[in-house]
Amino acid sequence: MFIHKVNETTAFKIPEERDAATLLEIVENNRTEFGQWLPWVKDMYSADDEQAFIKNGRQRMAAGTFWFAAIMYRDNIVGLLDLHQISQEHHRCQIGYWLAGSCQGKGIMTAAVRELETIAFNELNMNRIEIMADKNNQKSRSVAERRGFHLDGILKQYAFYNGQFRDMALYSKLKQ
Amino acid sequence: MFIHKVNETTAFKIPEERDAATLLEIVENNRTEFGQWLPWVKDMYSADDEQAFIKNGRQRMAAGTFWFAAIMYRDNIVGLLDLHQISQEHHRCQIGYWLAGSCQGKGIMTAAVRELETIAFNELNMNRIEIMADKNNQKSRSVAERRGFHLDGILKQYAFYNGQFRDMALYSKLKQ
Amino acid sequence: MFIHKVNETTAFKIPEERDAATLLEIVENNRTEFGQWLPWVKDMYSADDEQAFIKNGRQRMAAGTFWFAAIMYRDNIVGLLDLHQISQEHHRCQIGYWLAGSCQGKGIMTAAVRELETIAFNELNMNRIEIMADKNNQKSRSVAERRGFHLDGILKQYAFYNGQFRDMALYSKLKQ
Amino acid sequence: MFIHKVNETTAFKIPEERDAATLLEIVENNRTEFGQWLPWVKDMYSADDEQAFIKNGRQRMAAGTFWFAAIMYRDNIVGLLDLHQISQEHHRCQIGYWLAGSCQGKGIMTAAVRELETIAFNELNMNRIEIMADKNNQKSRSVAERRGFHLDGILKQYAFYNGQFRDMALYSKLKQ
Amino acid sequence: MFIHKVNETTAFKIPEERDAATLLEIVENNRTEFGQWLPWVKDMYSADDEQAFIKNGRQRMAAGTFWFAAIMYRDNIVGLLDLHQISQEHHRCQIGYWLAGSCQGKGIMTAAVRELETIAFNELNMNRIEIMADKNNQKSRSVAERRGFHLDGILKQYAFYNGQFRDMALYSKLKQ
Amino acid sequence: MFIHKVNETTAFKIPEERDAATLLEIVENNRTEFGQWLPWVKDMYSADDEQAFIKNGRQRMAAGTFWFAAIMYRDNIVGLLDLHQISQEHHRCQIGYWLAGSCQGKGIMTAAVRELETIAFNELNMNRIEIMADKNNQKSRSVAERRGFHLDGILKQYAFYNGQFRDMALYSKLKQ
Repeated sequence: MFIHKVNETTAFKIPEERDAATLLEIVENNRTEFGQWLPWVKDMYSADDEQAFIKNGRQRMAAGTFWFAAIMYRDNIVGLLDLHQISQEHHRCQIGYWLAGSCQGKGIMTAAVRELETIAFNELNMNRIEIMADKNNQKSRSVAERRGFHLDGILKQYAFYNGQFRDMALYSKLKQ
Repeated sequence: MFIHKVNETTAFKIPEERDAATLLEIVENNRTEFGQWLPWVKDMYSADDEQAFIKNGRQRMAAGTFWFAAIMYRDNIVGLLDLHQISQEHHRCQIGYWLAGSCQGKGIMTAAVRELETIAFNELNMNRIEIMADKNNQKSRSVAERRGFHLDGILKQYAFYNGQFRDMALYSKLKQ
Repeated sequence: MFIHKVNETTAFKIPEERDAATLLEIVENNRTEFGQWLPWVKDMYSADDEQAFIKNGRQRMAAGTFWFAAIMYRDNIVGLLDLHQISQEHHRCQIGYWLAGSCQGKGIMTAAVRELETIAFNELNMNRIEIMADKNNQKSRSVAERRGFHLDGILKQYAFYNGQFRDMALYSKLKQ
Repeated sequence: MFIHKVNETTAFKIPEERDAATLLEIVENNRTEFGQWLPWVKDMYSADDEQAFIKNGRQRMAAGTFWFAAIMYRDNIVGLLDLHQISQEHHRCQIGYWLAGSCQGKGIMTAAVRELETIAFNELNMNRIEIMADKNNQKSRSVAERRGFHLDGILKQYAFYNGQFRDMALYSKLKQ
Repeated sequence: MFIHKVNETTAFKIPEERDAATLLEIVENNRTEFGQWLPWVKDMYSADDEQAFIKNGRQRMAAGTFWFAAIMYRDNIVGLLDLHQISQEHHRCQIGYWLAGSCQGKGIMTAAVRELETIAFNELNMNRIEIMADKNNQKSRSVAERRGFHLDGILKQYAFYNGQFRDMALYSKLKQ
Repeated sequence: MFIHKVNETTAFKIPEERDAATLLEIVENNRTEFGQWLPWVKDMYSADDEQAFIKNGRQRMAAGTFWFAAIMYRDNIVGLLDLHQISQEHHRCQIGYWLAGSCQGKGIMTAAVRELETIAFNELNMNRIEIMADKNNQKSRSVAERRGFHLDGILKQYAFYNGQFRDMALYSKLKQ
């Protein structure tokens, strides 16, 4: 089990295919909340779906176009975070994340994003990190704001999911 | 020669490989101005480069992930415009364009973009069209503004080209 | 809509996927006649089939191995013509065509083929254009003959379709 | 060494990559004559070229789109013959062949083509076999004529090689 | 039919797709015995399976990564042998074989393997030939022993098939 | 930096492309010794070679056909170990490893292989692990022997590298 320690209670773990059941269980337990904001939730219903996601994610990570880790809290997997839309040309990427409802409110995600910023700026050669959240997803926006991301703008009807066009809030932080 | 008429003087034409020399000549004549804002200009130096671009563009257009046309003014090719980052899922795309300096100031590009909006909204099933321009590229930003695009925000250090990070202005227009 | 004008009443149009329903309707209305001579008719039964054909045709056209256009008469799609078996090495290709029965007898196809000859010889660098028709398909052979194509020979049992071997008439015209 | 016996003196042999040097030597010794009629001769100058041809030929033969054999006379390789343009749909193919000048005039090729007709009609499910030869390649046309092929026509400027358009004689023989 | 003669009664034949029914029939008649030792037997139930195997085998043979032949005895196909795991880098390969029960005990396989050794060492540039057989497959091990292969070792639980881990006997012979 | 702890001084680390220079330096410092036994050493001369190896290794690891880790000793990379020839069908794989000469003799590799056995048997679903070493590579064979692997046999002339055929010692350990 390959681990990147974040702090005394929290760590990142390279997702493995045998983590599929655990990750799926968290999705199941939080399907209502996650499904409101995360378009992929409606396509994630079996361990096979989750395994396929993990395998594909690892392959894209090996190719340098993606990065992801399971979030562990006191040795249990409780969430996931990733860097997508990685552009080596423009030194830019976007953070995504989700956390089991039962572990929210403990500062886990704020610590995790802080660590991921360090990884992105220092190890992965990024210059600009973005967070994009549904305008109405207050929890996700709060993570960006607590980490000092700048609100670049509200992008009207930028995304379409769950049958509706959605306004998206775009945040960014620069390496400087 | 396949033509889409815009108005009495202006038309769109499907680019063909034999248009490569003409398009390259315009790039050559405007290399200083274009090179300031368009990252691809530094890689476009021969008719072969231009032919490869046209062939690739036609293939992506056939696949539905791209759309482009040469702009004709009084039967001469004078520029090019395109839709890139076409997302069928989110019904969203981005407009790109350039026009020979000698033809600027005649309203050609404003008319061309107006027509392209109609095509994108009515024929290509788009809901949100974006224009992204370097913050300092006033000519390009004026086209967006004349066409009533909304400034969503200034994205700091969003792009890296010609050796510098660039702030980009993001505009959008909705179908409604 | 990208148009190549043939004469006052007739034009060529780049086929688009949203033309599938219109093209399929013509096939439906002429299934008996077309099915007698055109082997693909028995596989063209849904808008999906027709869309797949259009998408594939556009991709091969972009790759330079195929060329096709819908035939418009007084602003309605009434048929299709194409260049297939395009050989850049030997500067040779073959014309295919079909026209709605309701529009036959007006000289539309003769005008369309005349225009396509010009395109093939002058724009596409062809030297020899062929028309191959079932020996018994008198309508198709008449188009070749009206356009002054030379009968190279009758190729016995050259094709197999609808459960029978067919003798084919091979016509050709040179650029000179 | 896998052999198909034709008669007491002649056999077919599956080409192997280690036959490249022998085949190339025959091409070298007959370059002037072969080069007059066979377009590929000008690209066949090294054992690597010949090996690549053999490897590619074997792969296409395994895929059912090609068939070829070296011609052996008294245990020496003296030529090659093939079936190309194999159409399973139309049960049709074309014969190609060449023979070292030193072995011409002994009836080897006539016997070889007779045997290949049997293979094509009886084992490979063909119905129509074609031979296409340059109108002026009298030796090749004589093989077709001695084997009773029917001259379907002279196809004017059908091929372009060695800098000239060439008229081609098309012969065919049917299974029945 | 391409043939490599082994001795007065025995020959190798390049497998062709039309041999599928014959090969399948032998498998059917020997399913109990073969199925005990050959893992692929449980997946070989139709002429389509057998044809797919032959086509794939011919393609890999053309690519130089495989070699196989049907074994003919008095003009009938009675078995098959192959070289797999061909390493051009290490000049090493492994022999596989099976023979209809009704033809066993006549020395056919011993003669066939002797001939295949010659082909592998002299034509295919191999230096080490291996035979791997289930520890309990006495018939197969006897072929290796009669041909003077050296027992390198018993590889415990090397293979898993028919629901069990199997110990495998590894034999080898060097070109010297 | 993703870490799997082995013991107080030793850990495994997922190789990253930015580790290329460090790994290459160890190869450079041990080129004579490594080059004697490891065929790939002669092709590993630049950071680009090493980066390509790491990228390819990560992609194969994501696909489940390979597994590798850098060995860290007191926070420095000092070697590498891997599982190759992973067969999910037979639950079998082979261990490979190398260690900087300056760190040999401290029990690092024995501890690393012990840990890797646990990973292979418990996490990766393997049943048989092999170690294959040149018969004369006493250091490598000692690792296998210290870890209680069984010597299955000496495979004569099994490998060819550095211009010679090599006898290889094959060891194995079963999960039981």
